[in-house]
Amino acid sequence: MKSIEWLGNSLRILDQRKLPGEIVYKDVSSYQDVAEAIEQMEVRGAPVIGATAAYGYVLGAMACQGEPAELPEFMREVKERLEATRPTAVNLFWALRRMEDRLRECLEDKDMAGIRQKLVEEADLIAGEDRQVNRLIGECGNEVVPEKANILTHCNAGALATVEYGTALGVIRKAHETDKTIHVYAAETRPLLQGARLTTLELLQDKIPVTLIADNMAGYLMQQGKIDLVLVGADRIAANGDTANKIGTYALAVLAQAHNIPFYVAAPLSTVDLKVANAQEIPIEKRPDKELLEFMGAQTAPAEVSVYNPAFDVTPAKYITGIITEKGIVTNPYAVNILKLMVRS
Amino acid sequence: MKSIEWLGNSLRILDQRKLPGEIVYKDVSSYQDVAEAIEQMEVRGAPVIGATAAYGYVLGAMACQGEPAELPEFMREVKERLEATRPTAVNLFWALRRMEDRLRECLEDKDMAGIRQKLVEEADLIAGEDRQVNRLIGECGNEVVPEKANILTHCNAGALATVEYGTALGVIRKAHETDKTIHVYAAETRPLLQGARLTTLELLQDKIPVTLIADNMAGYLMQQGKIDLVLVGADRIAANGDTANKIGTYALAVLAQAHNIPFYVAAPLSTVDLKVANAQEIPIEKRPDKELLEFMGAQTAPAEVSVYNPAFDVTPAKYITGIITEKGIVTNPYAVNILKLMVRS
Repeated sequence: MKSIEWLGNSLRILDQRKLPGEIVYKDVSSYQDVAEAIEQMEVRGAPVIGATAAYGYVLGAMACQGEPAELPEFMREVKERLEATRPTAVNLFWALRRMEDRLRECLEDKDMAGIRQKLVEEADLIAGEDRQVNRLIGECGNEVVPEKANILTHCNAGALATVEYGTALGVIRKAHETDKTIHVYAAETRPLLQGARLTTLELLQDKIPVTLIADNMAGYLMQQGKIDLVLVGADRIAANGDTANKIGTYALAVLAQAHNIPFYVAAPLSTVDLKVANAQEIPIEKRPDKELLEFMGAQTAPAEVSVYNPAFDVTPAKYITGIITEKGIVTNPYAVNILKLMVRS
Repeated sequence: MKSIEWLGNSLRILDQRKLPGEIVYKDVSSYQDVAEAIEQMEVRGAPVIGATAAYGYVLGAMACQGEPAELPEFMREVKERLEATRPTAVNLFWALRRMEDRLRECLEDKDMAGIRQKLVEEADLIAGEDRQVNRLIGECGNEVVPEKANILTHCNAGALATVEYGTALGVIRKAHETDKTIHVYAAETRPLLQGARLTTLELLQDKIPVTLIADNMAGYLMQQGKIDLVLVGADRIAANGDTANKIGTYALAVLAQAHNIPFYVAAPLSTVDLKVANAQEIPIEKRPDKELLEFMGAQTAPAEVSVYNPAFDVTPAKYITGIITEKGIVTNPYAVNILKLMVRS
């Protein structure tokens, strides 16, 4: 199952909202449809949102009927529309900035066809790098996975959240591929159940032993000594290491520390946002009330009740044992060590 | 909405699984049906399970066709069936022991009609005491509720979990009745959503401001300083104060301590089980996988995935600021202070 696939003139997207019940692909050929697919979380997960937005940018350029000179103005709107989809994951903004930079570079010496070609190449590069980066994250992270580890993960930081392989699940896959005996507890991840629907599906397909729990059971498992390691992904990492990830991550980090359990974040360096100094500056998306008031049409609460539904929370760096990246594992002091790693070639 | 009502020859039970969508009452007239209603969680909540089982015992006695001399043997089976429904909440066993003691007392000098009458009276007494006890818990607990408090509660420890008024929600009701401005965050409580379905409903009916959250959002609210107090019920309290309650309670207690937020348990003294020394001895019910694999018929996870679904966890006494009972608030050292309170008339 591929999360996305570029088909030359359109982007094939796996509608993750329908998993595991139905496997539905849709081919989108306008940047507006790409934006909507991101907004509606048909495609979700920070790294693949970046690559998806990049192809959305390509589709935007294909829709521009004018001369190259008109592109910058047209593409500003395309970029704004794509950026307006989801505020927290920084990979979205990072990928679109890369696309815009590429456009600027080739604007003068290319015709429309040549520019579009260069943009496709850049989007392919972003997607290809993500594939490669996830393998490297898996290799780096495998170091911290003990033999016979019981690993707790939250949400889905797997192949479905990336172009391929996964970040947190990339580490888990690598541990499994190197014949470590591991077992994963997947927290179901309310309200959209990415853990229950997606993570379990990926691990079952790879024959990696997995047990589903409700989010509120993680503490009890830790109390019983049943968790050796917590592994999660990230949507944005501040310059000081504070990490925004799926709501519930912070609680798991506090619980892990209270039980002396290592807590690792696995993410590509493109998730680091050096412009953001710390947790307070990361924008946290609020999702619709409906996500908590009903499930697949069935009522889960009185319709008139107030709802608080943040999609993410921020885990302060002090709770994070290490951040697993494609260039190595960053540990405290994060502010310095993140920079060191980023400049390393 | 009454959780249960004795109708003379049958027990009216509100089917809580169907709330808030449908209000369905069913009248059960055999102890087997009462046992099933407890097992299936049509009626749930430690205090009301006690009263329900007591009326189930009465219905058992009504079904015995023989002489008073045959009752002890017959009623042993009735008691065993009712006890086999749910292992964790001690109120079930406590109420049935009271009924059995009553039976023993009146066995010699009564005929069948007289014995049944005495058993009805005892069940009525248990139910009546629960009403009164919850009001007293509300009064005691109101002391610890600050003006303008934001209170987090988990599961449903309300009127629906008791014969009337509620334990944790009894405290909240009392605070509201005494004109304190309070606001409640109700954690939805996976997998059966008692918080989303029941607690919000009760509070909306009483016009107490309430906001629904997913269980995994509680830590983030605490981090933001949005919770002043955590109030939960209990299913069994060990002699040392360790408290079994709905799964997820332990995680909230650890999180509350990490954020210096008072964490109170509200429960009648009938929830204390002096025969159980500490957490390790409290049996924890495992519920069916299905509760996590589907919701009202809709699939929430791959059908073949393993599931871990404990209904309760145990919060060690060291995390509990105080236990609010009908006789006052118990604090550390719990082992001594619980005993002191129990002997106080």
